[in-house]
Amino acid sequence: LRLSHYLRCIGHSLTISSSDLAKAIGVSDAQVRRDLAGLGHLGKRGIGYDGIALAHAIRSMLGLNRPWRAVIVGVGNLARALLNYHGFREQRFEFVGLFDNDQAKIGTTVAGLTVEPVERLPERLKHLAAELGIIAVPASAAQHAATLLCQSGIRGLLTFAPAILKVPDGVKIVPVDLAIQLEQLAFLVQTGSRRLDP
Amino acid sequence: LRLSHYLRCIGHSLTISSSDLAKAIGVSDAQVRRDLAGLGHLGKRGIGYDGIALAHAIRSMLGLNRPWRAVIVGVGNLARALLNYHGFREQRFEFVGLFDNDQAKIGTTVAGLTVEPVERLPERLKHLAAELGIIAVPASAAQHAATLLCQSGIRGLLTFAPAILKVPDGVKIVPVDLAIQLEQLAFLVQTGSRRLDP
Repeated sequence: LRLSHYLRCIGHSLTISSSDLAKAIGVSDAQVRRDLAGLGHLGKRGIGYDGIALAHAIRSMLGLNRPWRAVIVGVGNLARALLNYHGFREQRFEFVGLFDNDQAKIGTTVAGLTVEPVERLPERLKHLAAELGIIAVPASAAQHAATLLCQSGIRGLLTFAPAILKVPDGVKIVPVDLAIQLEQLAFLVQTGSRRLDP
Repeated sequence: LRLSHYLRCIGHSLTISSSDLAKAIGVSDAQVRRDLAGLGHLGKRGIGYDGIALAHAIRSMLGLNRPWRAVIVGVGNLARALLNYHGFREQRFEFVGLFDNDQAKIGTTVAGLTVEPVERLPERLKHLAAELGIIAVPASAAQHAATLLCQSGIRGLLTFAPAILKVPDGVKIVPVDLAIQLEQLAFLVQTGSRRLDP
């Protein structure tokens, strides 16, 4: 999803050229212009894109021009790292609930949220009006967490568990495999390549 | 890098067809066959690929047929989550050193490793024979960590810090932006798309 990367590059720039974006992301100028053409006439030849208008258009396209409420299932080190990650707040992602099955964690407060028992998910999720669920439990508990989240009307899941999850049609799922990114690095070092495809 | 995803799908299967791989990854059969054609004659028409031989060939191609030693700079929740992540060990990534600048953390033991002062990196890195560095510090400290790692002869960096890092030519860098993956999920939910490109 190159649009996300363009958004990062634009940052708070007032003007940015397609070649700046192309260099930063590692694609051709022509590819940048093609990707951004559908967003309207935001560029001026020889000057570049209006950074503010372009960022706004990309955010609209990505569905980021509104807040997204999310819950996290599994309150371990990964969840704590996510809760402390400032990037989410900038992008209008808000964590509104934490769930775990560990009695020692239930009732404790993490980042201002009280950890609730995972069994209460179906009942609590509607009240919390969360659309996205983050699965940060071990692989063995991931399907149970996904099933509870889907029963409760979640629309999308981000999962860090190294497990294939079955979800109903219509629920979107984005798996994050931290080992794959380390593999990509090893591949680049090993081969001296600049690119990651295929 | 689709090869990494193929490797995940193959798992311990003895036989796997291009259409199984295509379905699991969301590309066409023809794309799978093109991607794997360069690895040798590992498939039999009507039967599928030999899972063990294919996994071996992909691991060789990715540089994963040998161990990789890595150090982590910044021993917070994210580092702890990485150290507990079993996927790395399966892929022969080994964490051999932990570094931090927090006096309260230096000298403590995490996952069997003693946390060392970040200033000792240049001296320690050669002794540890680590080729990869993982930057898990806040954005404000990330460039300093990268500079120390590069001075010490690191070959590749995986960085979780939301910051653009300058590194010498020849050092490979793979940034991981956790917010981008949540953005991708929001995009899929918002638009109802099945795919993430572009």
